[in-house]
Formats: sequence, C-alpha cells, structure tokens
Amino acid sequence: MDILKAEHIGFCFGVQRAINMVYKELTRGTKRIYTIGPIIHNPQMVKILKEKGVIPVEDVSEIEEGTVIFRTHGIKKEEEAYIKQRGLRIIDTTCPFVKRVRKYAMYLKKNTYTVVIVGDSNHPEVKSVLSYLGNDGIVLQKPAPVNAKKIGIVSQTTQDKDTFVRIIEGLLVGAEEMRIYNTICENTEIRQREAKSLARQVDIMLIIGGTNSANTKKLYNIVKHVQPLAYHIETEDEIKPQWFSDVHKVGITGGASTPDFIIDVIEKRIKNF
Amino acid sequence: MDILKAEHIGFCFGVQRAINMVYKELTRGTKRIYTIGPIIHNPQMVKILKEKGVIPVEDVSEIEEGTVIFRTHGIKKEEEAYIKQRGLRIIDTTCPFVKRVRKYAMYLKKNTYTVVIVGDSNHPEVKSVLSYLGNDGIVLQKPAPVNAKKIGIVSQTTQDKDTFVRIIEGLLVGAEEMRIYNTICENTEIRQREAKSLARQVDIMLIIGGTNSANTKKLYNIVKHVQPLAYHIETEDEIKPQWFSDVHKVGITGGASTPDFIIDVIEKRIKNF
Repeated sequence: MDILKAEHIGFCFGVQRAINMVYKELTRGTKRIYTIGPIIHNPQMVKILKEKGVIPVEDVSEIEEGTVIFRTHGIKKEEEAYIKQRGLRIIDTTCPFVKRVRKYAMYLKKNTYTVVIVGDSNHPEVKSVLSYLGNDGIVLQKPAPVNAKKIGIVSQTTQDKDTFVRIIEGLLVGAEEMRIYNTICENTEIRQREAKSLARQVDIMLIIGGTNSANTKKLYNIVKHVQPLAYHIETEDEIKPQWFSDVHKVGITGGASTPDFIIDVIEKRIKNF
Repeated sequence: MDILKAEHIGFCFGVQRAINMVYKELTRGTKRIYTIGPIIHNPQMVKILKEKGVIPVEDVSEIEEGTVIFRTHGIKKEEEAYIKQRGLRIIDTTCPFVKRVRKYAMYLKKNTYTVVIVGDSNHPEVKSVLSYLGNDGIVLQKPAPVNAKKIGIVSQTTQDKDTFVRIIEGLLVGAEEMRIYNTICENTEIRQREAKSLARQVDIMLIIGGTNSANTKKLYNIVKHVQPLAYHIETEDEIKPQWFSDVHKVGITGGASTPDFIIDVIEKRIKNF
C-alpha cells in the first residue's frame, strides 16, 4: 500500500512559534502557565503541555497570579485588559496572521466601513477580532445581505477561499464601495489546494487533527467532495483496518496544529495493513 | 394593442444637464460651438444641434478658436490641456457621474493600487478615465486575471452589473487587497432593472436609442435574453409593421441619450397598427 503525504503537514508557522515560546518559558523554570482556552486546537498536544504545567482555563477571572499565555487564535480585548490591569506576566503567542486580521478590521472600522468578518462566529479567532471592534462588526459564514453602502471585509485566517469569494459576490450587488482584505493565511490556502489534489490521486484520505480545529474540519469538507472515502481522525486509535480493504493508495494530510509525532504514529500503523 | 413604457425613459440627468448647457450657450448668441466627438450618443439629437452650430470634430487640433464643449462622456486629459493652453472658452458638460469615476480611479492610483476599469476600452468615457491615469490602468470587459496584489476597481457608468460582479469574482482569487468603487450610475441600473421586468410582461420589446450608445446596447442585450422578440432602433423609420402581427403588448424603453420626441413619434406610429 502506497502512502502519499501532503507536502505541507505538521505545525504551521504560527503554531510552531507558539509551542517554541511555551517551551522557552518552561525552560526558564516557570512551573505554572495559564492559557485562556487551549493554546492550539489539538487536544493531544494540549494534554502534553498540561502535564508540564500549562493549564487552560475558560474564564480569565480564574487567573489571579503567575504567567498567562495569549493563545494562537488571540484573546478578547477585555481579557487582555484584565490581565494587563492585574500586572500578570504575558506570553503573547497570538499568530501574527491573526493580528493582521485584527489590524485590518480596526483600520476599516476607523475609516467608517461596516466591517464584515467572513468566518465562524463561535471560533475564538473571530471572537477576538470582533472584541477589538467593540463587537461592532458582522460575522458571515454564508452569503447574506448587509445593508450598508461602504463595506469592509476581512476573513478568518483559516477560511476556505470559495466561501470567502461567494460571500463577497453576494455583498457586491448592494454596496457602493467595498474594501476587501484577503486575510486567509497562505498556509491554509496551500494545505487546502494540496488536500484537493491529493484526494484525486488516492483511494482513501485521512485528515488528521483536532476535532475542534477549524482548519482541519475545512480540509475534511474540501476533501470529501473529491474523495468520499475520507476520515477526519485525531489519533491512531480511531483507525479501523477494514477501511483499507481494496485500497492501494492512502492520502494523508493534517491541520495546522497537528503535531508530527501523531502523523508519524499513524503512518507506521497504516504500513502494517 | 397595449403599450407599456418604462418609467425611466428619455434623457438621464447628465444628458439633460448637457443639453441645457448647450442651449443656454446658444441663447447667448454664440454661433459656432465645437465638441470633441458627439456631445451625446444620439445621432438625431446631434444632427439637430449641428444645424444650430454645434459642430463635432474628431481631432482637437481642428479647433483653433471659439467655444468648446467637453462632451458628457468626458474628454482626454491631453485634449483638456490643449484647449486650456489655447485659452478657448470651455463649456464642460462632462457628466458628474463620469467625473466621479475619474476621481476614484486617480485616488486609487495615488494609493498604489493597480487600477482596473471595468468597461469598453473603445468607449470615450473609458478612454477619458484612462488618460487621467496616464494610461496606467487595465480595462476589462470580461473576466481575466490581473497579476497584482493590490487591486482597485471602478466601472464605466453604463456598465451592466452582472458583468461587473463576474469580473470582480475572477480577480478575488489572486488579490491580497481589493478596493472596489461601484461607479455604475443609478439611472443605468434602474433602466436595466425596469427593462428586464418590462420584457417579461410583453410580446415584443423596442429599445430606442443611438446604435453608438453603450447604455442602449446594454439594454438590448439584457432584454433579448428575457424576450427574444426585441429590436434596437434609432427612429420610427426602422419599424416594420409585420413585427406586430399576433402582438398584444408592446414594451418600450430607451437609452439615457434618447430624446423624448423620438419616443413620442414611435409610440404614435405603433398605435396605428
């Protein structure tokens, strides 16, 4: 059985940067580090870090002292204010590409555009961007009308481009002026393109990554339209041998927060079938 | 036979304004007025004005003295410079909506956008806008790729919106930032919408206006997809009685530079069938 692996797999730039920053802090001897929500959307990696003292909390008010990580997806403006006001030590792992979304969104608002964020209103990145706009923004996950003459648009970094384009098409009809920043991160685009191409060449696709990972879920959605025999898994335990009967070629791709060691284990496991 | 006439028919704001300005000048006793190209795209109206001393010339260098009209579609920057340098009297009938296109195009260029003009490269309005950009702009009449990260877009005032939207869709895929000014004039949009709706209710459509009129041609193109029995005519002489056999309802619309008197004559003619 042949295994074809996507060229871009494993941590993306932003996730690798965040993990490096955390390990550097742990090396300094810090025993307890808090993150507001998981630092990345990979439960296995979050578990490993937890064992080393990196504790995710849901509510910022649970943190009274010590060191605080700003997660890769960014935190809310009011959370940042709270932490700064308490004078806690901050390790800001917010992905620079996420900060770029915030920067453009705020710039558009300042210039009197009605700001539209193309993305998922439940995703922490979108919540972060929206909070920096004082919640004065519209989140769209599918085409819908926006009653404004001057519309400014940004996208969640892990947005799929087709949806982004379709939402803009819908808005074009009513607007007098539109200013669009395509803030989909390049790595997201490359992985989506590679996944599509890979899916066409194989008999089965495995998409590896957290079930809470937006970019992994998008990879799965893109792939399953091309290759219906596709599975989104987090670890090797979910693999079923019967998936591979009559299979000659397996394609593997993973989300931006999927550690290499998980992919390696899965690869070895499949080779035995 | 019922005649259904579009609500918006006859001169648009910009054409009416231009004609008023010319008549005012003639009232002052001016005997000879030059225009670079026809002042509006209606041969019948241009002929009437010519009899009153309003002479269209093709080349600005033919004008050595007297009064010069800047046509509704705007003239080229170099033509404007020539006329000003010679110190000729100017009557600027350039439509304010066309000036708006030029203003936004120049603003986008100044802000380092690659400027795309959605329109017809042979149309005087587009030629005018392009000349004010020092010819540093790209004219697109159908979807095509533009190799630029920062794209600014304006449209010819008489552009049809569907094409405008489709061209933008095509550009969205490659750009990092796009700034779009929808400079299609409202009157154009309203006439197109009315024409479409009218075409659905009648057995035959007459679209009245200059065969050199971009907005009239666009009306015809829109209508013929809805009602194949459609004719683009300039005057009553082109009407053929056999068009109206088995016809119960006739729809009439006209371009932005079609004079009311032409429409009136056509209406009377049809009533007799």
